[in-house]
Amino acid sequence: MRDRALRAISECKRIAGMSEEPGRITRRFLTPPVREVHAHLRSRMDALGMTVRIDTAGNLRGMWKPPGAPNRRLVLGSHIDTVPNAGAYDGVLGVALALEWVTLAQELDLPLPIEVIAFSEEEGVRFGVPFIGSRAVAGRFDPALLALKDANGVTLADAIREFGLDPGQIGEAALNADVLGFVEMHIEQGPVLESEGLSVAAVSGIVGQTRLTIEFRGQANHAGTTPMNLRHDALAGAAEWIGAVESVAQKTGGLVATVGKIEAEPNAANVIAGTVRVSLDVRHADDRARKSAVDSLVAQAQIIATKRGLALESAKQMDQPAVPMDERLTAYMANAIAAAGLPEKQMTSGAGHDAMVMAARLPATMLFVRSPGGVSHHPGETVREEDVEAALHVGRKFLEILATAVR
Amino acid sequence: MRDRALRAISECKRIAGMSEEPGRITRRFLTPPVREVHAHLRSRMDALGMTVRIDTAGNLRGMWKPPGAPNRRLVLGSHIDTVPNAGAYDGVLGVALALEWVTLAQELDLPLPIEVIAFSEEEGVRFGVPFIGSRAVAGRFDPALLALKDANGVTLADAIREFGLDPGQIGEAALNADVLGFVEMHIEQGPVLESEGLSVAAVSGIVGQTRLTIEFRGQANHAGTTPMNLRHDALAGAAEWIGAVESVAQKTGGLVATVGKIEAEPNAANVIAGTVRVSLDVRHADDRARKSAVDSLVAQAQIIATKRGLALESAKQMDQPAVPMDERLTAYMANAIAAAGLPEKQMTSGAGHDAMVMAARLPATMLFVRSPGGVSHHPGETVREEDVEAALHVGRKFLEILATAVR
Repeated sequence: MRDRALRAISECKRIAGMSEEPGRITRRFLTPPVREVHAHLRSRMDALGMTVRIDTAGNLRGMWKPPGAPNRRLVLGSHIDTVPNAGAYDGVLGVALALEWVTLAQELDLPLPIEVIAFSEEEGVRFGVPFIGSRAVAGRFDPALLALKDANGVTLADAIREFGLDPGQIGEAALNADVLGFVEMHIEQGPVLESEGLSVAAVSGIVGQTRLTIEFRGQANHAGTTPMNLRHDALAGAAEWIGAVESVAQKTGGLVATVGKIEAEPNAANVIAGTVRVSLDVRHADDRARKSAVDSLVAQAQIIATKRGLALESAKQMDQPAVPMDERLTAYMANAIAAAGLPEKQMTSGAGHDAMVMAARLPATMLFVRSPGGVSHHPGETVREEDVEAALHVGRKFLEILATAVR
Repeated sequence: MRDRALRAISECKRIAGMSEEPGRITRRFLTPPVREVHAHLRSRMDALGMTVRIDTAGNLRGMWKPPGAPNRRLVLGSHIDTVPNAGAYDGVLGVALALEWVTLAQELDLPLPIEVIAFSEEEGVRFGVPFIGSRAVAGRFDPALLALKDANGVTLADAIREFGLDPGQIGEAALNADVLGFVEMHIEQGPVLESEGLSVAAVSGIVGQTRLTIEFRGQANHAGTTPMNLRHDALAGAAEWIGAVESVAQKTGGLVATVGKIEAEPNAANVIAGTVRVSLDVRHADDRARKSAVDSLVAQAQIIATKRGLALESAKQMDQPAVPMDERLTAYMANAIAAAGLPEKQMTSGAGHDAMVMAARLPATMLFVRSPGGVSHHPGETVREEDVEAALHVGRKFLEILATAVR
């Protein structure tokens, strides 16, 4: 298992060298280095006896079908695109681990077909819309997206065409019915497993997310000549509310609420702020808990504004429901963790993943691998060998459990 | 008196048309419209029988010396430069009122010489350093300032030379010893008189000011994947401290404390802020009260940072002591307000003025005129006719009191 773990890590490092930019990892949807990644993964899949194809959305897909096995297959996958100046493991580790899971299934001689998908697009960097690869596989791709343009004015349709594929046939990437379920392995991209001293966790759901902007408008005035009792200080109001956001989130189990962006006007040391705009990002695995927190925070903003003689405006930019993972598959994953001799941990994902899109089409679950320092979307992103090895021990148990269950 | 008030207001409006920019009032130190202002004021002073000169710092100075009067004179003055896109009254009203005070002294036949100074520079816009005119008159001009450059690379020395003056002789602008005191009339530029329903106030002192920057450094992290208890949120820390700043200022009589500027990094809605820099501006007429508030606020920032696992840095940009106005002259002004039948009001100035610089050289005081809406440094700046008229009634009484006192 240690050798397999080292091989998976070494694959990630090798693929990291296939980049749009020398010395940095940047690999956007269907850019030239994607061809290198496809060629490399194809050779790996060929060597494992898999049948390989690139679908109409640019996803690389390899099928392992044991002789005499039934048709219904397990789908494993993650993405091979990256953010600009990325780390080596976000997305790619899930593909490298999936190939190792195939070697485990082969070693155990399980009568379980496995399809491995290297999704072409998850980060949303090139066209501003994420999950292009998994949308197509899940049969949830809206053809209107083909008109999206990248920073150079190239449409999504043209990008697909230039890669040698037919955008008019993108619907053909959709999965057929012979699927047992979908599993995505991914680095956690957060500090929870590290803080609890754990290698891996089963993911029970992906949080819903509300994003809004709140604007406090008071009166810009001279910082020296305006007494405290005659002020309508938009920044003091916003600061009070930022405290309320933190307090509500700390009191509500499973909630995260963040004010990450703030802009003051005129933003000068000797002028009382007249206008302050802040962002609010609220996430929870339970939609009612999230909505209740958002309602309470907007109401508190209004109370603070009224008390201070400020005007208030709020605008919602995003309101995305939570996506639960499949209960049965997640229970198998939790059982597999325990069977591998590890503490059985389930958690929610605070970020979106391909599994969220796939879950609209078929049973799906995820396995998180510890992110040292919680670092991701950064060149400092890394993994520990023992955690990757743990994901393989869990994989062996999961495959055995699943093969037994569907026999 | 109403006619004199209307004339003073009309002078301000006329001078407002002498600008670097069409449709906006912008008149920086020694720019071409300053020549227009000088020509206009010179004709007004000539008509009043005053002796007029432009001193080596570009201040326009008119002397009224009644026949047979003693040499010691009262100096009246304010500035004729403006901020960009200014109002019509900041500075200029003090000069217009000073000329009306001369007409009052002439009408009363007071044996009191009066020098009126239209200071060339107070706002600090062109060379980044304020009070150039009054520094020279107070004999407090540091020749090192001559090397300052404006945005076009023109040095202060060159600007003075191009105006036709000799920067090497700037010391000659300094007042001689035959001076009784200095009085500056100025719009309040704040909301205090309006909130109390008063036309004018005597100014007992100009606040001291501390300005510093505080930086909170935490850990930038994913807003979705980082639980509340594992955050080191620099913005949440800064917000808590902004609340403390407001609270300390509200509890301390006469103190104003302002966080007007805030910058967060990376300043993105879905990322916990890693670094936040805020400004602090603290002012009080009593230096010990100001220093004690600043010490307490820096200590509270440290407590907040430590509690939250943030690093803290603070850097002081300014630490300027309070400048009390002359007690005797201020008492005369207060008496004059009462003698004019108005409520006797004294207040501190929260902003710097030429009188602050002059006070280092001679007894000085100020008379504030109500600022409707507290608006200044803005085209919406205005004055009420009745308040300007009140400043003239007070002027008549002040001149009588002073003339009697020095007889």
